[in-house]
Amino acid sequence: MESGYRIAVVGATGAVGTKMIEMLEQTVLPIKEVKLLASKRSAGKKATFKGEELVIEELVPESFENIDIALFSAGGGISKQFAPEAVKRGAVVVDNTSHFRMDPEVPLVVPEVNKEALKKHKGIIANPNCSTIQMMVALEPIRQKAGLDRVIVSTYQAVSGAGASAIRELEEQTQAYLNGTPVEELKAEILPCGGDKKHYPLAFNALPQIDVFAEEGYTYEEWKMIRETKKIMEDDAIKVSATCVRIPVASGHSESVYIETKNALTVAEIRDLMETAPGIVLEDDPSQQIYPQALNSIGKKETFVGRIRKDVDVDNGFHLWVVSDNLLKGAAWNSVQIAETLHEMDLVRV
Amino acid sequence: MESGYRIAVVGATGAVGTKMIEMLEQTVLPIKEVKLLASKRSAGKKATFKGEELVIEELVPESFENIDIALFSAGGGISKQFAPEAVKRGAVVVDNTSHFRMDPEVPLVVPEVNKEALKKHKGIIANPNCSTIQMMVALEPIRQKAGLDRVIVSTYQAVSGAGASAIRELEEQTQAYLNGTPVEELKAEILPCGGDKKHYPLAFNALPQIDVFAEEGYTYEEWKMIRETKKIMEDDAIKVSATCVRIPVASGHSESVYIETKNALTVAEIRDLMETAPGIVLEDDPSQQIYPQALNSIGKKETFVGRIRKDVDVDNGFHLWVVSDNLLKGAAWNSVQIAETLHEMDLVRV
Repeated sequence: MESGYRIAVVGATGAVGTKMIEMLEQTVLPIKEVKLLASKRSAGKKATFKGEELVIEELVPESFENIDIALFSAGGGISKQFAPEAVKRGAVVVDNTSHFRMDPEVPLVVPEVNKEALKKHKGIIANPNCSTIQMMVALEPIRQKAGLDRVIVSTYQAVSGAGASAIRELEEQTQAYLNGTPVEELKAEILPCGGDKKHYPLAFNALPQIDVFAEEGYTYEEWKMIRETKKIMEDDAIKVSATCVRIPVASGHSESVYIETKNALTVAEIRDLMETAPGIVLEDDPSQQIYPQALNSIGKKETFVGRIRKDVDVDNGFHLWVVSDNLLKGAAWNSVQIAETLHEMDLVRV
Repeated sequence: MESGYRIAVVGATGAVGTKMIEMLEQTVLPIKEVKLLASKRSAGKKATFKGEELVIEELVPESFENIDIALFSAGGGISKQFAPEAVKRGAVVVDNTSHFRMDPEVPLVVPEVNKEALKKHKGIIANPNCSTIQMMVALEPIRQKAGLDRVIVSTYQAVSGAGASAIRELEEQTQAYLNGTPVEELKAEILPCGGDKKHYPLAFNALPQIDVFAEEGYTYEEWKMIRETKKIMEDDAIKVSATCVRIPVASGHSESVYIETKNALTVAEIRDLMETAPGIVLEDDPSQQIYPQALNSIGKKETFVGRIRKDVDVDNGFHLWVVSDNLLKGAAWNSVQIAETLHEMDLVRV
């Protein structure tokens, strides 16, 4: 690494892509060049990187010539088509879509949890689902200390995970509601899921659907949390179940997480673990009404943990409230952090 | 009951009291007279009952002379002071505050679940907490069929449970947020809990605090769900845990409920139970994106149940999404329904 890496951002105009550029401005990674790629529709638009104006280029296979690291966040179809093109040209891909996540050849990485998995990469590394990442950050220190038998999570997810247009839809619906528009007339064209048939207002509502429905009545988002947890923790025996819910929040995912550990543990010990573990900020003082809040997480890279309680009736049962900025640790920051970790471990060029 | 009951509504100007008047307009209960009571501050204000204008009177002990049924929803302190005055004068009290709920002498009643408990009343019947009621309605048919070993609930609660002023606060914060007011400058004087020291914005946020904090890091709201479930189901062995969260919704509480039954059961059997049980509307068709939504529950008396799924890893483990209008089934309607049931069971005058 003479003078730094050449980095491509695929999907540079999206909600996550924009944050990836911000995270690259803050990274310790040596950077020689940043190339911003997007669909033909967005090509020619401009964006700023460290004060320098960059023109967004149309994504084509040749875009990856001489690229060292390519960060993808432009939808599963784009990753499927172009990630192999990038790898073929010698780039390492960090993919933020779900396309490669469950591929046994592709490491699924949260650096605080399983960076060793990076050693086995064959050119593509998958960034886990936003709601999975923050839960992994919070639970890994507990798993290391006392083992993990089961996880039951109910999420309170922000709309920014559904893209910039979903944020606008929520804001427009909210304004219409405040102006007295009847519920039946609130306009919904994207949420709960752009690719699904029906759309419902999220303003002043809670929608228990993220992504489309799949087997056994679970949504894909719920299956992502279940399957990705087992893959990242490399333990298929952990029982995991999830209920994923979209709430009228712009950014910042919150999660009510119930766990059962294998061995005995105290709330005080969990608090200690949270205070010393990487990437975690403990916010847990009921006497001062201190607990993590979605609004306070915006723009921060850490995962915030609080409301740590022992289950009243069940030994080794604990409840936690876990919050993080879904666009940062849940997406852009975790991707850039993977790139930083690849660099530290000397795994960018293999 | 020659010509009907004389009914008093205590706290007639509040968010719940207003709905109690509406429910009394719709009840099958024979009514001779409705008397609206409130604090001195509200006395003299007017309200309408079945097209007739009623003047709100100041609450004093003598207000209950000749009253048959008194519906209380004006805070625990008012119930503590005035419910015994009403009973002394021969009225039956249905109290919507938490004051008498755990009193062993006071039945805590959800008519669909435990109306038999009314037979033991000594003048006061307690209306359970809003978030408990809807969960009881959904779980009782399952408990009857297959027993209930444990419950873990995460709530998504509306602000109207915190009163009309909390709704206004949320609306004002939301408008300020949409107008670009920075998060630090959003005004919060009531939420998460009027009686607590610190206040936080709820607009575009999720606050994992309802009521004040109590033992073991649980809030009172969480303890209410735990203790009231055991009392209503008359089974201290049911394991119950709760995480109660306020989200930016005006009315309609949603709940992510995990249960373990004692005996085997299928999802199809649970759906059948929900279709035939009293007070429940089954809304559960993933293929058509049909599931309960807070916005759709407003103004309805039923409890809506959907997203019924078997836990992936745990035998007898099931997940449900339970939604109801917290001001109606969670408060005003359940209170009036208790009065109707007292009448049916000939228990108004004992």
